[in-house]
Amino acid sequence: MATYAPTEHTQVKRLAKRGVYDHEQVHAILDEGLVCHIGFTADGQTYVIPTSYARSGDQIYIHGSAASRMLRTLEQGVDMCLTVTLVDGFVLARSVFHHSMNYRSVVVLGKARLVTDPGEKLAAMRCFTNRMVAARWEEARQPTEQELKSTNVLALRLEEVSAKVRTGPPLDDEDDYALPVWAGVVPIKLQLGEPVADGRVLEGVPVFEKSRLARR
Amino acid sequence: MATYAPTEHTQVKRLAKRGVYDHEQVHAILDEGLVCHIGFTADGQTYVIPTSYARSGDQIYIHGSAASRMLRTLEQGVDMCLTVTLVDGFVLARSVFHHSMNYRSVVVLGKARLVTDPGEKLAAMRCFTNRMVAARWEEARQPTEQELKSTNVLALRLEEVSAKVRTGPPLDDEDDYALPVWAGVVPIKLQLGEPVADGRVLEGVPVFEKSRLARR
Repeated sequence: MATYAPTEHTQVKRLAKRGVYDHEQVHAILDEGLVCHIGFTADGQTYVIPTSYARSGDQIYIHGSAASRMLRTLEQGVDMCLTVTLVDGFVLARSVFHHSMNYRSVVVLGKARLVTDPGEKLAAMRCFTNRMVAARWEEARQPTEQELKSTNVLALRLEEVSAKVRTGPPLDDEDDYALPVWAGVVPIKLQLGEPVADGRVLEGVPVFEKSRLARR
Repeated sequence: MATYAPTEHTQVKRLAKRGVYDHEQVHAILDEGLVCHIGFTADGQTYVIPTSYARSGDQIYIHGSAASRMLRTLEQGVDMCLTVTLVDGFVLARSVFHHSMNYRSVVVLGKARLVTDPGEKLAAMRCFTNRMVAARWEEARQPTEQELKSTNVLALRLEEVSAKVRTGPPLDDEDDYALPVWAGVVPIKLQLGEPVADGRVLEGVPVFEKSRLARR
């Protein structure tokens, strides 16, 4: 089993039994998430900004306007943290103290690299698009030179990585099992609604198939 | 309309039309979210950690083990950032470039305060619990002295705050509307599954009513 080596920064200390380092689980969490939260410090202030992302092999790509403060800061190679969290359920215990959430999260530390190779940049952008909708890159209009120029793509290598997972029922203190209180889990999932066309879709274009978003 | 004054740090610069500062919208986003992501810097490394939270008036409360690194760091009054993001939909445009997500996010900057007043601490813990499930505090076993001692509660005041919201259909370049490509929005929502009892619920205890989680 391939694993990420815990470092001084990524060693899960509190509730160490929840710590996960193997590649397969880390990748599965990253591939299921829709947004990541990126932390960085600029002029002494720490910011946490949500953004979409895509994983390809051991690289996580983010993108945005070349003018964005976040991208301009990260391009300089400052320390950053990228976190993805999936919320799986409410955990209702018999005592207030043992209430919890089921969740899976991944924390990646490192420094971003501006993707300058045109082939890698295009491949990353295709990855963003087709991650959202299967084969969307092949049917939508692809980027112009100008659009490519105004978009920056950054890569963060999966190297200093940890995951934390809580699953399963509540764990109550033994005495509390005698209490007449309902306890268990209420699962939480993402649900896709019916696609809403924008009113200018040409006649004859097939209705969008939700199954193309089927990875979730 | 009460608003948060944009500061040098919270003024939304890119896509300023997405910037939102009024209290009602900011509170609505905070009250709908399940987890926040907290950014802070410790020993020169920026971390982003997910955790649950509750809002009461102009305070956001977080809690955790008194031994947690995050809480111990934040208690020292370092600069922090607390971000809540709700993902509302995939936005599929006719061009790859205009693909997007609908979302609502709030960014709060400030320094945390350790809640030392026993009344405020208890009220905050009740707020966490009843935010998850209506009147749960009143039916579950309440914290012992020891449990209270091992839990720290921190407060962050809503003062330096901004929100960013994207809603509505894709916005394509005018020429692209002639393309035979489906475009529109696929909504995303959280869905609660059926409650799963933990196997040790006493006979006669009523099945858990999902409507008690009805705020979402």
